[in-house]
Amino acid sequence: MSEPVKIAILGCGTVGTQVVRLLTSNSADVAARVGAPVEIAGVYVRDTSVPRDAAVPVGLLTSDAIALVESADVVVELMGGLEPARELILNALVRGKAVVTANKALLAAHGPELYEAADAAGADLYFEAAVAGAIPLVRPVRESLAGDHVTRILGIVNGTTNYMLDEMTTNGLDYDVALKQAQDLGYAEADPTADVEGHDAAAKAAILASLAFHQRIALEDVHCEGISSITAQDVHAATVSGHVIKLLAIAERTADGVAVRVHPALVGLEHPLANVRGAFNAVFVEAEAAGELMFYGQGAGGTPTASAVMGDIVSVARHIAGGGRGPRETNYATDEVLGIESTTTRVQVRILAADRPGVLAAIAQAFAAHGVSIETVRQQPADATSAGLVISTHSAQQSAIDATMAALQGVDGVGEVLSVLRIAAEGKE
Amino acid sequence: MSEPVKIAILGCGTVGTQVVRLLTSNSADVAARVGAPVEIAGVYVRDTSVPRDAAVPVGLLTSDAIALVESADVVVELMGGLEPARELILNALVRGKAVVTANKALLAAHGPELYEAADAAGADLYFEAAVAGAIPLVRPVRESLAGDHVTRILGIVNGTTNYMLDEMTTNGLDYDVALKQAQDLGYAEADPTADVEGHDAAAKAAILASLAFHQRIALEDVHCEGISSITAQDVHAATVSGHVIKLLAIAERTADGVAVRVHPALVGLEHPLANVRGAFNAVFVEAEAAGELMFYGQGAGGTPTASAVMGDIVSVARHIAGGGRGPRETNYATDEVLGIESTTTRVQVRILAADRPGVLAAIAQAFAAHGVSIETVRQQPADATSAGLVISTHSAQQSAIDATMAALQGVDGVGEVLSVLRIAAEGKE
Repeated sequence: MSEPVKIAILGCGTVGTQVVRLLTSNSADVAARVGAPVEIAGVYVRDTSVPRDAAVPVGLLTSDAIALVESADVVVELMGGLEPARELILNALVRGKAVVTANKALLAAHGPELYEAADAAGADLYFEAAVAGAIPLVRPVRESLAGDHVTRILGIVNGTTNYMLDEMTTNGLDYDVALKQAQDLGYAEADPTADVEGHDAAAKAAILASLAFHQRIALEDVHCEGISSITAQDVHAATVSGHVIKLLAIAERTADGVAVRVHPALVGLEHPLANVRGAFNAVFVEAEAAGELMFYGQGAGGTPTASAVMGDIVSVARHIAGGGRGPRETNYATDEVLGIESTTTRVQVRILAADRPGVLAAIAQAFAAHGVSIETVRQQPADATSAGLVISTHSAQQSAIDATMAALQGVDGVGEVLSVLRIAAEGKE
Repeated sequence: MSEPVKIAILGCGTVGTQVVRLLTSNSADVAARVGAPVEIAGVYVRDTSVPRDAAVPVGLLTSDAIALVESADVVVELMGGLEPARELILNALVRGKAVVTANKALLAAHGPELYEAADAAGADLYFEAAVAGAIPLVRPVRESLAGDHVTRILGIVNGTTNYMLDEMTTNGLDYDVALKQAQDLGYAEADPTADVEGHDAAAKAAILASLAFHQRIALEDVHCEGISSITAQDVHAATVSGHVIKLLAIAERTADGVAVRVHPALVGLEHPLANVRGAFNAVFVEAEAAGELMFYGQGAGGTPTASAVMGDIVSVARHIAGGGRGPRETNYATDEVLGIESTTTRVQVRILAADRPGVLAAIAQAFAAHGVSIETVRQQPADATSAGLVISTHSAQQSAIDATMAALQGVDGVGEVLSVLRIAAEGKE
């Protein structure tokens, strides 16, 4: 067997602790896969005097990140945040060290800089855990589909919001109650903004679209809407029309360009994504030759995330022990990145309107005037003088939908446009 | 860019034709991924005078397989069957050529010989398309989970039988009608034995278990039962108890050893595998750290299978253009391979029994005498003098289940044991 491969671990939170545990308990298996022993060179923490989990021997801890990086072959960044993670990764890559990271925020913000540093140094930069926790996505999308042409990705990539929407659907909870419950269970943070406003999902969408389309998609390219305006009434209307509401990361590639966005959307009950329950994640991929694929599993949590980090450690350590390198993109595509207004979508609109003759005709006219074709209208009394209308459209350009919604405000008899939700997928057929 | 990488394609059926089409139409993308142009050196067919699909230029056809292999860097075997596929692949590997194959029967029968030849020559042997068509499984299981510990795999890996069972469940069809329908649609062959008796699934189970457990599992190690004895009554009883019947490939690893088997089994309606409809495939993986994962997609068909072959071509061509090699197993595990009698399982048993006092007690006694604990009993009148009993057990060793079934034959009042089906998975929780 070759010389030992030395691993520096930066950060000792839940993921870092689990990686140390797995490297220790699975060391014989890991050595067999790598073709060389794999040793932990050290674990960087800011304060070595803070007590750690029993899985992490005190002797491994160090507060000297630079010296640790220098002593290792592979640097595993599990600190999170932008700095000093970015600086330490660049420092490692420049020295030709392989890097494994689970840091989605960093990759979404500074991915191109890091990929370029890796390319320039001829070093591996692996990040399976940054996209959807334990779910293998990077290798399937970047390698297995490398000779195919991915046209669309629909992903449930945030477990917190999927848990909340599932509770609202299954148990009829209001948004606030579902959020409180997610916080009590530790799924949501005290400040839930990053989850509920879609920022976490948008970072993952940027990474996923970059991989699938072999193109650099920045976080600014991702249109982002969260779920904080979703009401129990929206969920109920979705159920009545045979859908569930999911927060989706959507990446599409057409002849016009690529479009990447995060927003709540209606998904038909027969679609595989509709059955993704609780805090689970799933990514649905459409490719020209492969057809429909779906990848399902746990998108967060210390142990599942550590599994993905371990797979990356084995891959890069194998290259160090036996030669070779992971795939890199030499020729990036430069398709136009489309704004949300240029995308096409179907929508379900809920409107509160006066319950008198002529109002529905005027509403229908507002849709028609903007070239938005109505598929179904469902009307039910709201109170003595008004009715709730649920209108589902055929596919139309987002800008036409927006113009229609603006026009509806001026239609005599329209009380309020209660909600506008996109319909992302029906079931089979 | 480097020198062109030359591809020899052996076989020009539906998959071979699609691979030629994709290599041609996606050539710019493929070159960008590989870092070098990828050229088709030729397509081996037995008879070059037979008309081919327009996607395959006549000038590429050759009936001289040996010369074609010699002229290429990568050999893509899409002929199927054991010979001459085995001989041509060995010939290619000995000469240091990388090999991509979709031949599951060959890998299940002669895998170890082929893997050894690849190792000895330092050549890549890739086979993503052999396991579940378009679904990326080899990279996720062999690489992404390389630092984790896979404990169980439950796979729907035969689309024909999944289509038939789905039709029996959804539309109440009898087995014969479902088979006829599958044949009419081209899912099932005129002689459907390989599908309905589980042989195709068993070959895939052997490959999948070998990858997941890093151990050589031979086809003879796989216990195999098909679906030809499944009746509309079995499907109905499964529905009543909240299950669907699926033909599953199951690979388990416990402290006692590994066990691999194919048989029809009950799956709880809430389980992700229960929603896999029609001819789709899905593989559910349980790993110690990653938890539950599922991979879903099309398991057969020329175009989806070609997508998986293309991913492998890009990977091995990248190694040829840029150096390195795919993962290989240096240390195979040698856990004991357990026979079906040593595995534990829950079962649902349907019994026709005399409808008189004492019979149920005698039946319950037969279970108890063999240490098989009953979870639920459902009884309904069958005719004037007999009743149908549906008994679900707790987990027990297969040998104890078998002994119980044998003993039931001698119980006074038991007319017939109509069916014994294993329960493989309930829903969530």
